[in-house]
Amino acid sequence: MKPTTARQSDQPLSTAEIIAVGTELLTPFRSDTNSLFLTAGLNELGIVVRRKSIVGDRVDDLAAAVQSALGRVELLVICGGLGPTEDDLTRETVARVLDRPLSENPAIVARLQARFARRGWTMPANNRRQARVPAGAVALDNPRGTAPGLWMEHLGRVIVLLPGPPRELEPMFTGLVQGRLAAQATSRRLYRRVLRVAGRGESHVEERAQPVYERWRRAEPGVETTVLASPGLVELHLSTRADSEPAAAAVLDGATGELAETLGDDLFSTDGRSLPEVVGALLARERLRVAVGESCTGGLVMARLVDVPGSSGYVEAGIVAYSNAVKRAVLGVPPGVLEAHGAVSEAVALAMADGARRVGGADLGVGVTGVAGPGGGTDAKPVGTVCIAVAGPGTAEVATTVRLPGDRAMVRGQAARIALDLLRRALLRGCGGT
Amino acid sequence: MKPTTARQSDQPLSTAEIIAVGTELLTPFRSDTNSLFLTAGLNELGIVVRRKSIVGDRVDDLAAAVQSALGRVELLVICGGLGPTEDDLTRETVARVLDRPLSENPAIVARLQARFARRGWTMPANNRRQARVPAGAVALDNPRGTAPGLWMEHLGRVIVLLPGPPRELEPMFTGLVQGRLAAQATSRRLYRRVLRVAGRGESHVEERAQPVYERWRRAEPGVETTVLASPGLVELHLSTRADSEPAAAAVLDGATGELAETLGDDLFSTDGRSLPEVVGALLARERLRVAVGESCTGGLVMARLVDVPGSSGYVEAGIVAYSNAVKRAVLGVPPGVLEAHGAVSEAVALAMADGARRVGGADLGVGVTGVAGPGGGTDAKPVGTVCIAVAGPGTAEVATTVRLPGDRAMVRGQAARIALDLLRRALLRGCGGT
Repeated sequence: MKPTTARQSDQPLSTAEIIAVGTELLTPFRSDTNSLFLTAGLNELGIVVRRKSIVGDRVDDLAAAVQSALGRVELLVICGGLGPTEDDLTRETVARVLDRPLSENPAIVARLQARFARRGWTMPANNRRQARVPAGAVALDNPRGTAPGLWMEHLGRVIVLLPGPPRELEPMFTGLVQGRLAAQATSRRLYRRVLRVAGRGESHVEERAQPVYERWRRAEPGVETTVLASPGLVELHLSTRADSEPAAAAVLDGATGELAETLGDDLFSTDGRSLPEVVGALLARERLRVAVGESCTGGLVMARLVDVPGSSGYVEAGIVAYSNAVKRAVLGVPPGVLEAHGAVSEAVALAMADGARRVGGADLGVGVTGVAGPGGGTDAKPVGTVCIAVAGPGTAEVATTVRLPGDRAMVRGQAARIALDLLRRALLRGCGGT
Repeated sequence: MKPTTARQSDQPLSTAEIIAVGTELLTPFRSDTNSLFLTAGLNELGIVVRRKSIVGDRVDDLAAAVQSALGRVELLVICGGLGPTEDDLTRETVARVLDRPLSENPAIVARLQARFARRGWTMPANNRRQARVPAGAVALDNPRGTAPGLWMEHLGRVIVLLPGPPRELEPMFTGLVQGRLAAQATSRRLYRRVLRVAGRGESHVEERAQPVYERWRRAEPGVETTVLASPGLVELHLSTRADSEPAAAAVLDGATGELAETLGDDLFSTDGRSLPEVVGALLARERLRVAVGESCTGGLVMARLVDVPGSSGYVEAGIVAYSNAVKRAVLGVPPGVLEAHGAVSEAVALAMADGARRVGGADLGVGVTGVAGPGGGTDAKPVGTVCIAVAGPGTAEVATTVRLPGDRAMVRGQAARIALDLLRRALLRGCGGT
């Protein structure tokens, strides 16, 4: 897909800036999220984002931002401000900075009128503004909204204007912009792979993985690794530049294979799948169904499991049993166990897992009980203490106690992740018992 | 709290820019969130954010951003890049732009050494860099990390440097920066109030609220209103400038009172509380306990309820019953009802609500059953069809069927919100039955 107006430079596009336009993005309530999507798409083409700016709906501010960005990078992507109202100034401001006259494009007017007519409406006069196109610009069709995008080339620079709503911007970028950029970008694209590790802290993972990825970094072609850690999850983002997908895959497969060996079962995903997706695939493969009995996580383990489309095939039931009465009545936790060990104990977690399994008529049960805080902690069982268990038909029972840092939401999030990981490890060991 | 180096301008601070520094913020994986927190704090002081920029760990890029920002606004807040490593360039770059020599501050060195000593460690040589202070700058103590912040004044501008981690930045901004800024900002601060409306679309709310808030906008002092809509929730953000909290409260109370009258029971919060918090407060006030039986929402209704600290006082149990077998066995939904009406029906939602109530030994029950997608839809009950019910002891039963747009996650999120709102409205009607 060749652009219709030629860029006046033969250098491949390699650096970009993103400008998000909108006064609402300068309040405490809204942030720019388009730039993350756009950065991923640009990186795939080997284009690095050097700077991001957010400006309000003010001609002078936007003009200054556009002007200075064009002095720094080869590609400028501007999102937002293409609507029909007085506030929407991007089209006019960019035309002014590039000194290009605007004229109404009759094809766009006709398309807008047809769009309104399909809904039984007459096009408001305001929307005519959206059909104005700077001289030399290519209009980019927006099937999901009224604002067309624009592709412009100017003194060796490419300027792309896209509407702000993500559901309009995303398909336009993927369908209309990425191909045009690819034609002008380096043939050496950036390819990524994400490795996900559960149940280990960042330093543990670093200690094992660093010698491997350091070696791959110095190899030719090299593999760059970025480590991103959040509570209970460590991600290794590998990237390499290559001329083709197979060439990249060969390199990334090599690095991934060595990291998989050194990380063992802690590594749960090398193909982008989340922990609930991996657990779900294991359950589906083993034709096992699971039920969850949870207390402090309040349904979060269940919610994560059923986030996955198709989970009704392997998720049977979830019971949130806050009080001891419900633990007894619904999950059948023996009163003696509650009295002897207390509600937050491995014995109760196991009884809850087993109760969920029986009540739900499932093959496997998961039980979680703990103190999420802010209240409820004791010296022996402070806030953050959580007991987690998996019960299966055979001898495959496992329980663990963890002490988690952070506030209520953090404790619950980590506990849910650990419960899913415990279930995953049980499934790897073949705990279906059959 | 007076700054120790005087600013060379008597104009109150009124405009700001925020620069976030860090190459990781230019990847698809991380975004700047500090600026939302900072914007809220600056707005409170009547300071408007004119622009936000994100630059990588490159001296030239940061220097250019600082230089141009100082030409535009009176206050520049820079976050990140104050760490001990080679990548951390903010201190040195800002000192260079302002042409201020750096020198080591012995008090900071001593504080850093003591910090490491408390953990039984020796301070690494690298960390000495963090004690370097540009001439004329005031160091801002960081109790949660090694990077001190810096407050500088230069040619009528204020420049504040803060560390990137939110848990370090936030208390430093609130404790050390906001007071200094207040001394130089206008005495007319910005005061806000957030009104939350459930169960109505944006256009319905606008139609009723707009005549009221338009009148308040033109009043003196005026109230600005921003409408933010997400699926199932509309927020009206009111703001006014005033010299004091009581003066602002008088104006905001007036506007809020009129909006409350016109919006009626759809308005559920005028004091910042979320829907689960409001529902929880109603349950606590009526001394009623609730149990939830849910299918397509997969535990989300329960999870939202127990997100609230103290919810164990009024949340009894939650049962996620995916299969008809579990709906029958655990929730006691009569097989005849399932056969006659199908799993996605108001009759089944009511039976689930009633079953949850009985099984959990609670006063009120909530039932949710529907088709979240992507599979499972039929012509009569397409993806997005959800039946929701609330059951109480007396005659207080209510059920509704909605057809929700969007993907699986959106359908589930909206359904959970509608269920909570149905419960809220039942509580307002006094459906405890006692």
